[in-house]
Amino acid sequence: MTLKDVSANKIFGGWNIQKSHTSEVLGCDMRFAVYLPPQASKDNKVPALYWLSGLTCTDENFMHKAGAQRMAAELGIAIIAPDTSPRGDDVPNDEAYDLGQGAGFYVNATQEPWNKHFHMYDYITQELPTLIEANFPVSGLKSISGHSMGGHGALTIALRNPDMFKSVSAFAPISNPTNCPWGKKAFTAYLGDDQNTWAAHDTVELIKKAEKHIPAKVDQGAADNFLAAQLGIDALIETAKACGYPMEINIHEGYDHSYFFMASFIEEHLKFHAKHLSV
Amino acid sequence: MTLKDVSANKIFGGWNIQKSHTSEVLGCDMRFAVYLPPQASKDNKVPALYWLSGLTCTDENFMHKAGAQRMAAELGIAIIAPDTSPRGDDVPNDEAYDLGQGAGFYVNATQEPWNKHFHMYDYITQELPTLIEANFPVSGLKSISGHSMGGHGALTIALRNPDMFKSVSAFAPISNPTNCPWGKKAFTAYLGDDQNTWAAHDTVELIKKAEKHIPAKVDQGAADNFLAAQLGIDALIETAKACGYPMEINIHEGYDHSYFFMASFIEEHLKFHAKHLSV
Repeated sequence: MTLKDVSANKIFGGWNIQKSHTSEVLGCDMRFAVYLPPQASKDNKVPALYWLSGLTCTDENFMHKAGAQRMAAELGIAIIAPDTSPRGDDVPNDEAYDLGQGAGFYVNATQEPWNKHFHMYDYITQELPTLIEANFPVSGLKSISGHSMGGHGALTIALRNPDMFKSVSAFAPISNPTNCPWGKKAFTAYLGDDQNTWAAHDTVELIKKAEKHIPAKVDQGAADNFLAAQLGIDALIETAKACGYPMEINIHEGYDHSYFFMASFIEEHLKFHAKHLSV
Repeated sequence: MTLKDVSANKIFGGWNIQKSHTSEVLGCDMRFAVYLPPQASKDNKVPALYWLSGLTCTDENFMHKAGAQRMAAELGIAIIAPDTSPRGDDVPNDEAYDLGQGAGFYVNATQEPWNKHFHMYDYITQELPTLIEANFPVSGLKSISGHSMGGHGALTIALRNPDMFKSVSAFAPISNPTNCPWGKKAFTAYLGDDQNTWAAHDTVELIKKAEKHIPAKVDQGAADNFLAAQLGIDALIETAKACGYPMEINIHEGYDHSYFFMASFIEEHLKFHAKHLSV
């Protein structure tokens, strides 16, 4: 696999790098961003935090707005930020912001017209980490985090792959997509009407069946406009408690769904993951 | 003067607020952003750092990308981020990114068609601080900083108004606009062909005549694409030294002109200003 240079900017002594590549899994060209902390070198491979963004985002939003590089540099953790869906003129799309390009929902679509390209689950769990570990000075130790749709992605992917990640965290995740408008719309389009297929991509449902637990942390703003209708935090709290899943969930008064919220608490998430990555 | 609410987001325990108002000086509606740290209240007015952004920016870029709120919250400093020019359908513009809307250069234009609206010097030094101090819990103690065109704005405004600001800083400022393409183009358009009028808005020229010195700090990336042609850092270093102006100038290997550079060093700037604002 060939990587093309897109950009490289020095920040906090490390490098914020964008590359593009032709994805076999997604059948299109994809761009991703990597933050390499100053400690990373051929002789000193560092652990990595995979970051999954929310609806409408690309690989750039988190790297530009969350202020994560400061603490990643201090802790010596790389950050890997993929795009949120396949992209391009040949890739199906929808006029709505919550379906199609920018809204991959981290599943493998089985339904037309999405099933040719929309395989974000395989991209995040297989193709991307293989690519990253072959081309960057990362050790293979991984944790995963994300926001909103990406919080859903991080939690569901970690719950399905507990041996792949040391820890998982999320900001304002779509915790119970089988029971909210965003999730029902996306899962119907990508996975079809048979709701039995949906549970495999629903955090609340996956917690109920989880045999192996990994450390998990969730932060949620109490002033989040999407809290009541879309995010399902109550179901997450109740299910984690009922099932004894070790999930630290904090509700923050006054904070909303924006990057201003994430910027305020990203340091805590990075320190949480660093502890479990044994940095 | 009436302020209209635009947005309010909690971040690091304080509030990132956008308001709009009808500017008398600029003859159009203007939006600005304020970060109020958690310490700010009616009974505890805080000092303020005015931030002037660069070409093409609005009031948002710095607040979204620089990560300044974290340290501003810790130090108890408000940040005031105005737009970079008058805006609107009735305001003259130019197709180029470096003239007209988004490129006010912090001067009072004397030439047609710019002279009706482009009075950013008066807006920053008079109308905006009056508005801010009447409507927000700030003490009146002020420092000023900025990037590129905004670094030019911060330095020239502070040098012309040394009693108004306790300290000044800049990232990659256009230090000698009378001798670079950006400056010559803008000053010709806004101030006319008589170059005698330009020196009053040129940092290098103002340092030569400065009677009162205030603490100043400048950071510059050595890998900045605009360094050689536009920024005039050598002239700034030589002139500050020759004139004994107390200006701490640091060149940083590998850093470019982007917000990634500013994010890396904004903490140092905030601590520098906090010291001089006697926080």
